[in-house]
Parts: sequence; C-alpha cells; structure tokens
Amino acid sequence: MTQTKTIYLQQVKQQNLCSILTYIWEAEAISRVELIEKTGLTSGTITNLTSELIEWGLIRESETSSGTVGRKRIMLRFQPELYRIMGLDIGRSSIALVMTDLTGGIVYSRKLDTGETLEPASVLAAIEPLMQEALQLAASEHKRVLGIGVGIPGPMNLETGTLRKPPNFPGWDGYPIRKVLEERLGLPVQIEDDARTSALAERWFGHAKKEGSLVFVTMGMGIGSGIIAEGKLVRGVNGLYGQVGHTMLDPHGIVCDCGNRGCWETIGAIPGILRRYGGEGSMAELMEQVKRGDPSASQCYEETLYYLESALTNVFNMYDPAMIVLGGKLFSYLEPELARIRSRVIERVYDFVKHRVRIEAATFGEVQSAVGGAALVLEELIAKPLQVMRRS
Amino acid sequence: MTQTKTIYLQQVKQQNLCSILTYIWEAEAISRVELIEKTGLTSGTITNLTSELIEWGLIRESETSSGTVGRKRIMLRFQPELYRIMGLDIGRSSIALVMTDLTGGIVYSRKLDTGETLEPASVLAAIEPLMQEALQLAASEHKRVLGIGVGIPGPMNLETGTLRKPPNFPGWDGYPIRKVLEERLGLPVQIEDDARTSALAERWFGHAKKEGSLVFVTMGMGIGSGIIAEGKLVRGVNGLYGQVGHTMLDPHGIVCDCGNRGCWETIGAIPGILRRYGGEGSMAELMEQVKRGDPSASQCYEETLYYLESALTNVFNMYDPAMIVLGGKLFSYLEPELARIRSRVIERVYDFVKHRVRIEAATFGEVQSAVGGAALVLEELIAKPLQVMRRS
Repeated sequence: MTQTKTIYLQQVKQQNLCSILTYIWEAEAISRVELIEKTGLTSGTITNLTSELIEWGLIRESETSSGTVGRKRIMLRFQPELYRIMGLDIGRSSIALVMTDLTGGIVYSRKLDTGETLEPASVLAAIEPLMQEALQLAASEHKRVLGIGVGIPGPMNLETGTLRKPPNFPGWDGYPIRKVLEERLGLPVQIEDDARTSALAERWFGHAKKEGSLVFVTMGMGIGSGIIAEGKLVRGVNGLYGQVGHTMLDPHGIVCDCGNRGCWETIGAIPGILRRYGGEGSMAELMEQVKRGDPSASQCYEETLYYLESALTNVFNMYDPAMIVLGGKLFSYLEPELARIRSRVIERVYDFVKHRVRIEAATFGEVQSAVGGAALVLEELIAKPLQVMRRS
Repeated sequence: MTQTKTIYLQQVKQQNLCSILTYIWEAEAISRVELIEKTGLTSGTITNLTSELIEWGLIRESETSSGTVGRKRIMLRFQPELYRIMGLDIGRSSIALVMTDLTGGIVYSRKLDTGETLEPASVLAAIEPLMQEALQLAASEHKRVLGIGVGIPGPMNLETGTLRKPPNFPGWDGYPIRKVLEERLGLPVQIEDDARTSALAERWFGHAKKEGSLVFVTMGMGIGSGIIAEGKLVRGVNGLYGQVGHTMLDPHGIVCDCGNRGCWETIGAIPGILRRYGGEGSMAELMEQVKRGDPSASQCYEETLYYLESALTNVFNMYDPAMIVLGGKLFSYLEPELARIRSRVIERVYDFVKHRVRIEAATFGEVQSAVGGAALVLEELIAKPLQVMRRS
C-alpha cells in the first residue's frame, strides 16, 4: 500500500471515529443499530470502530431496558473512569482551574482572585500549587490526563501559541504561554480566547450540547463573544469574528480603543457605565444607589439595559443563533433582569422567530472559561481521536 | 455488497468528485499531480475520477508549457462547450435572466424593468419570452441546460420552495414559485433570497472566487446581505443570518417594520434617506440637489455615508470576512464615494487588520442576482455531481 493511501485510510478512519463519538456525545447513550442508521456506516465498521473505542477506554457499554417491550438493549456511552482533562482560565484579576472526566463531570474546581492584573511569572507561581493538586488527584486515582486547555484574553496567534497585544494585560504581549505550560506540565496544551472557551463550555457541557449553535456574550471590563455555528467555533479570516462589543450602538459616541466610534463596549461595559454615571465609584456602589432608588443611578441602569437589549437584538439579527448565553462579572449584576431583557428582545425581533428566542445565563459561573478550556481538549479528542490517543 | 455499503461508497465518491471539482474551479487549471497532492487521494483514484468527469463533459484537458523548462503539462479545466446554466432574478421592479457556461462565461443576459411591483402571473408572463429565447439559444447550439437558479426577495421556505410574507411584495406570500417554474420549464429549479444569490455570484464568478469569504451588502428600498464563510452560504438557524439592515445604529431611532428600533434600514435605505431629507421627491432628485450644493441635501448625503461607513465597520467587526462587496440601486448612487467609504472604514477597524480591509463594488451590476442564480446551480453541480448528472 502506498504511503498516500495509508494516510488517506487513516483520515477516513478518523472521520468515522469522529462521527461515532459525536453521535454518542449528543445522545449521551446510543445503540450500535442507531449508530449504523445515523452514520451510514456498515455494521462491520461500527462493530470494529466501537470495539477500538471501548479498548481505549473512551466509551463503555451499558444495558438499558427499552421503554415499550422491556427488552434489554446495549447502549454506548462515554467512559468517565479512565481519563481526565484539565481546563485553566487566566483572567485579568482571577485564575481558575478545573478537571473534568469524559462525560462533562467536574471532579476538581478552584478559583483564585489575584486582585490586580499579574505578569506571567506571578500567574505561573500562583497556579503552580493548583496544578500540582489537580495532577496529584488524578495520579492518586490512576487517571490519565489527556491535556489542558487554556482560556486567556485575546487576541492571540494560535499557530505559535503566543498572545498578541491583549488590551489591559501588561507583560503578556508575545508571551509564549502554550510552550511554557507544555514544558512545565509535560502535557499537550491548547489555548483560546477566553470568550471562545466560555462558548465551548456551553457547546459541550452546557445549554447548547444538542444544538451546537450559540453566541456567548461575556460582559465585564470589556465585552467579548464566542460564537458556535453548526457545532464549530467560528474565528473569521483574521480571528476577529464576533467582536460584538466593537459595533457602533451610538452614532454620536466617543472613539473606542479599537478605533471605532460609539462601540457598545464604550457605553455598556463597566468603565463605560461608570463614565455615563459620572465617573465616580465602582459598579457595586452604582448598584447600591440603584437599589436605593437614586434617580441618576436608576437612569444609568435603565440605559445600560436598553443598550444590552439593543445589542442582543442585533446579535439575533446578525447571527441567527439557537440561543444567546450571557456571562461575565457585569452580567452577575444584571442577571436579576434576565426575564425583562428576554421579553424586550422578543418584542424587537421578527414575528416568526419570537417563540424561538432563547437567552440564558452561563452555566458555570466563575469557572466558565476554565470549563471551556477542558471543552477545547474534549473537542480535539472527538475530532481527532487517533492523534490524541497516540500522543498520550 | 449491502445496500448501506453501496450508499456509503457513493457518498465517498461524491465527496472526492466534489473536492476535485472545487480544486479545479479555484485554480482554473490544475494538473493531476497537483490534484493528488491537494486531495490526498491516490493517483489511481484521481485517474479514474477525472476520466469520469471528462467523459461527462464537465472538465477537459489542455496543454500548458510549464514556465521554467518549457516542458508540456496536461492541465484540467472546466469544459464550457456542453452545458448551460440559467439564472433568474425576480425583483420588486425588474426581472433579469442570464445563461452561463461552466466556466462562468455569460452567454445570454437580459433585464426588464417592470416599473411597478407585479403579481406572480404577470411576472411569469413577462419572463416567458426571455426563457424561450434563452432555451432556444441553448438548443440551437446543442447545449444541455442543467437547471435554473432563482434569486427572489425573502424570507422563504427552502424546503417547499415557497415565499414567506416577503415585505413590499404583494401577491407572493406562499406562492410556490419553484414548483410553478419546474412545471413550466421541465428543469430542476432552485430558489434563494436575492441578497444571497448576489453573494454567490461573487463567490463563484466574482471577487471572492479564491477566498470563498465575503459579505455582500445590497442597498435599495431595503438593506439585505448574503454571507459566505469558508466557501459556503451561511443561513443561520431560522434563515435569518446576516440581517445587517436590521441592526440598530440609532438608539433614538424609529421603530422598523421588523419590530426593532433605529435599524440601519430605517435611516440608510432609500425611503429612510428621503424621510431624513424631508419626505419629498426621489433619490435621483436628492442627488441632483447634492450636486448643486444644496446644504440640507448635502447634510443628508453626508449622514447617509456616515451610517454606511459605521454599518460596514460593524460588519467587519462582527463577521471578519475577507471582503465586503456592495451592490443594489442605492449603491449605484453612492459608488463614486467608494474610495472615501473604504478609507473611513479602515480608520475605524483594529490596527492589525487595516491593511486587509477590502470593500469592492459588485461585479455584475444589474444582473448580479441573476448571475448568482446560475451560481446556485453551479454550486450544486460541484457539491453533488453524481445527483446532478443523473437527473439531467
């Protein structure tokens, strides 16, 4: 057999394994007969490939009695016993680390507030004990760690694994975070923009597990998004897809750091909200004034909700996703208004989609992006099981 | 061989044919050796499949002397001699029909101004003589017509081939345009939103032939878009992807027909521009006043350009495409300002992408959407050559 042919057959095999794993993931439990129907593969191929996946310990068999006749059926599920995945989030004022099994179960979860924005060496010193704790936990239970996925502020160069002038993140420009972690941990490391890892957390473990379509909007000191369409993260030609915080909502607004004018971020993220309020105090203090019924605080708050509702309507009309999921520090202040935000967006979209508008709160709170880091590795495992299993 | 296996092998064959045709299309001319490298298929498979494509008359061989040593190489290209594709555009005040060969050459092109918006029966009566003329041309030259693609105002139900309450298009709600044309012509018919066919015209025959990434923005009585990413039309979960005309640019704006407020369409499409100007006259008259230096006309015009530039910056930051292409009746008035629009958008996007901003005028003018109708059929031929060749 020629080398080209061998490579080709490996590609076909990998494609088939990927489609089997995807169907098992989405169904949670599925029979071989259903796999044959869904994939269009022969029963022989399904038997061989699922045996191989069972041998590797990625999936397992379990018996289920079918509803109508009580006959037992053998179902295939992901196997949580053998492998672990780590997810790390490096934020501007906090760090989080999680470890999951292959069914999305979170077996370890820690968050550290660093208070101020730290340079790389201090961040690495701060996460080192967490890393060791998690790795020891895995070792003591005889689990194999498949890799670690890292959510971190973008933009970044995914080929070299280095950051590219991340705003408000001094000391990180050009820092080779992937290489450094690979050397420290001896594990495969993947990095991704933290808004995108947050979206992946919903796609694989959260609200959009079945749909594979969502826009995750994260709101804090800035506003970013991660967008999944047809099950996949969309990055755009220059990695800029989904800069929803940098679209103009106010034609008379101020110039934004990005170069655009009147961006949602300039009026709808925390610094912009406080600027509109008058420049004094913190978001917590502003919310305190809102609760007390202070008129100018209330007006600022209502305007913030109006911009949010408008931006989310734009997101629906631009991206037509199955759902929008909201997260981030600012959203934790606005979450009590979720029902009102939802109903106002519904008022503003086309009639024939009003009943399909879904706006949800993020599933994993403070560890959202870290869980998404784990999802990044899971996604790679499902897309390229041959490579991932060979290297670990 | 089981039936499942036969179906599976046909799917693999179709996938391989599709990837061969796509590489030939994008390169215009390519050798078998290059195809082996690009597809990863064996030389035997490439030999067999390209022979089949040559037999069908979809591609042909041609000799090229390679640059450096003058050695002759056999190149594969699309074959323009045997087949024709028809493209139809049904607009609110005009109809266009084109016929192309398989290399994108336009062999027939007609446009009719209907003046007013016509109901289905009148449109069909008006296009009948054009259809006959085009079909007779093909017959007299012994060409086989593979199908017809139709661009028409959306939204629509692609499964049933019927329109779904298209705004300002009385008499067309629920009209089964696909079925009617299929019965009249005895040809396979495909329909698509006219902004999307316009985008397909650029993707297959125009500016984005190699990139496969663009946002086509069409501006006239309304503002719509068609978006291609990674070579494919993106439709969204409800078919609403890319409603750029229905994103809020003015937070204090009026309520739009779509239900949203301050939409770009309400201030940036022809009716909105005239409303801002004062409600009198036509776009041509407004432009006349701008040329004469009338202050309020000039101010209205400058505001129109500001909204356009802002909306296009939003499009870049939301979709991160390789290029934006502009078309439609309103754009024909604004086209002299293209260089100014482009440089203003460049000022407003992120530094590291400024050199990559491309904004172009539509390639096919008045028959843009009709050419895109033909592209719709070409795309199907390339994606599913087995099906298309079997049915014709």
